[in-house]
Amino acid sequence: MPQRSYSRSEIAKLEKRFRTNLVNSLTGFKSVSLVGTLSNDGITNLAVFSQIIHVGANPPLIGVLFRPHTVPRHTLENILNTKSFTVNHIREDFVKQAHHTSARWDDSEFEACGFTPKFTSNVSAPYVAEASLQLGLSYVEHYTLTCNETVFLVGEIQEILLPEECIGSDGFVDLVTAGSLTCSGLDAYHQVQLPLRLTYAKPDQLVESIDQ
Amino acid sequence: MPQRSYSRSEIAKLEKRFRTNLVNSLTGFKSVSLVGTLSNDGITNLAVFSQIIHVGANPPLIGVLFRPHTVPRHTLENILNTKSFTVNHIREDFVKQAHHTSARWDDSEFEACGFTPKFTSNVSAPYVAEASLQLGLSYVEHYTLTCNETVFLVGEIQEILLPEECIGSDGFVDLVTAGSLTCSGLDAYHQVQLPLRLTYAKPDQLVESIDQ
Repeated sequence: MPQRSYSRSEIAKLEKRFRTNLVNSLTGFKSVSLVGTLSNDGITNLAVFSQIIHVGANPPLIGVLFRPHTVPRHTLENILNTKSFTVNHIREDFVKQAHHTSARWDDSEFEACGFTPKFTSNVSAPYVAEASLQLGLSYVEHYTLTCNETVFLVGEIQEILLPEECIGSDGFVDLVTAGSLTCSGLDAYHQVQLPLRLTYAKPDQLVESIDQ
Repeated sequence: MPQRSYSRSEIAKLEKRFRTNLVNSLTGFKSVSLVGTLSNDGITNLAVFSQIIHVGANPPLIGVLFRPHTVPRHTLENILNTKSFTVNHIREDFVKQAHHTSARWDDSEFEACGFTPKFTSNVSAPYVAEASLQLGLSYVEHYTLTCNETVFLVGEIQEILLPEECIGSDGFVDLVTAGSLTCSGLDAYHQVQLPLRLTYAKPDQLVESIDQ
């Protein structure tokens, strides 16, 4: 496939919307989840996040990148206030409702977009009952990045809820069967095909696929 | 699907390998790329990274999470020394060679795993010639996280090289046609299906799919 190149100065000169779509596509496929929180006043909040990454397994930590806190960011403020949030994988059967949470709602996105809040005794933030894979987290720390004022926040997993049939004997989770989607750019949601799992890499052995 | 739950204390008691596989799966699908660097001595290096996220479009920034710098980490050290690195999306046709770079090699992973280094005038680090989507970056800043000593490093995109046919009129990049994979857990690589693109969300309008 013939390549097109963009230098740093060409990127700077691109039309704003074109550049936003282009650069948001470049890191590749992303996870896509609904983050559930509760305000100090008890109002539930729901928002789509695709900048969520694994930070560590023991203790179990994940990181979430937030846009600059220069305007009200309900999800970030709720986490800083209540120290609690949930991550709920988005599935194909509610992807349009999930995307709709990104509109400017005055009240709770749960009610506005047709989601059911679910509470457990382990975390104060609301889960999305419709999601099959749900994580409950507590706030650990956050960093405001000097480069562009985005906020990298780390949470510790306090509770995992996931379909029993998706948990492999070695702990690997079958996200395809769980129905989790991936996303790209700003507005594209994708289903994912069954995986090729590969053996642990050693210099003197060819990498092979793991039979499942 | 019936759910299984794990509390924080149950997670802590899991067998180590099971917990590692489980927790690494929970953030959902991840991007998966080869990061290319050059040592001060001119030795090329290549490593698989799945913790890469979008940080900003203008300036164009991405973030990479590195495991704790408590043992030698060639990729991180090379970036801190040379201030340059490349990100090259992994495709199905070279996924086994890409996975093989994670073995303990004494010399360059390019030669050991059958990849061709490619250089341009805009960045000093080597690209993977076999990849169709390549990013050249310069070091911006990094943070060592207090919680577990992982390192979150931000780079600025200096050059984008990608298949011309994958660039939409609005800047959206068709990563499925580019052949980019996604990954899950520690060893699973997946092809991705064509996307459902959704309209910009507004409170008074239903979300619709964008015709392409």
